[in-house]
Amino acid sequence: MWFTGLPSAGKTTLSRAVAAQLLAADLPVELLDADALRLTISRGLGYSKEDRDENIRRIGYVCGLLARHGVIVLVSAIAPYRNIRAEVRQNLSRFVEVFVNAPLQVCEQRDVKGLYRRARHGEMHGLTGIDAPYEPPEAAEVECHTDLESVEQSAGKVIAFLENHYAEVLLP
Amino acid sequence: MWFTGLPSAGKTTLSRAVAAQLLAADLPVELLDADALRLTISRGLGYSKEDRDENIRRIGYVCGLLARHGVIVLVSAIAPYRNIRAEVRQNLSRFVEVFVNAPLQVCEQRDVKGLYRRARHGEMHGLTGIDAPYEPPEAAEVECHTDLESVEQSAGKVIAFLENHYAEVLLP
Repeated sequence: MWFTGLPSAGKTTLSRAVAAQLLAADLPVELLDADALRLTISRGLGYSKEDRDENIRRIGYVCGLLARHGVIVLVSAIAPYRNIRAEVRQNLSRFVEVFVNAPLQVCEQRDVKGLYRRARHGEMHGLTGIDAPYEPPEAAEVECHTDLESVEQSAGKVIAFLENHYAEVLLP
Repeated sequence: MWFTGLPSAGKTTLSRAVAAQLLAADLPVELLDADALRLTISRGLGYSKEDRDENIRRIGYVCGLLARHGVIVLVSAIAPYRNIRAEVRQNLSRFVEVFVNAPLQVCEQRDVKGLYRRARHGEMHGLTGIDAPYEPPEAAEVECHTDLESVEQSAGKVIAFLENHYAEVLLP
């Protein structure tokens, strides 16, 4: 399950909430956070389109390894480009795109990591949503409006999708 | 389980033979081949000590993800430096080092990928065993002499080690 969206849209919060519910049901879950992976399998990659795509491709590869062994993998990663999300989807037998959608203004107000502030002050460049593009999903399996829904409501939508489409995955 | 040794020592052959036996016993197995991983999580890395270590570190990270979910991971990778093998060992709760040992002359005669020939003709540089170091394990859990043993014999030694030390892993 890929949680995509702008910085501070709530990807990590939502993926953790979903993971907690799956873990409570004794299911094998792995949470992959793009920020953490930039210290391991994607160390040294930057933020050009090429490097961002390579980053996503590597995460997709690791997802495949884990999924092959029955692990439900939740990825929290901006993954701003449609083409690479499509590529990852194609390489996995099951793929659920969760569009973590909040208006840019809301994300900027949250600014969990202070990135928007730094970008607005010219202290960083290439921030998705400010001076780098974000291509929103055109047909995400689940869309959560984190500015209007509580975390519980958004997580409930994700779990409901799994129950309706991948019930076999939810069997312990 | 990490299969370390010179190029053409028989790492891939042996790891495949062990994997086949574990799979036949219905155990969850993943084979990670360093050559293949250089096209995915280690794409762009070269063969300096720094890049080789980074390559091994990333493979170790992926091993941890898989092992956490009960997968027996067999890695086939030269991993020429002792320090990085020690680092990977330290980061994993269970680590079995299999020294795939064959004399350089035997490996060079086999020359499965033609690397030794290219190195001897000056067409490539930094080949482990020729003009890059290989630091043999000092206390590998298993040592296989692939010039003296058949693949079945070597694989048998590895399986016997698992049976004697990690019997719980071999329960389906």
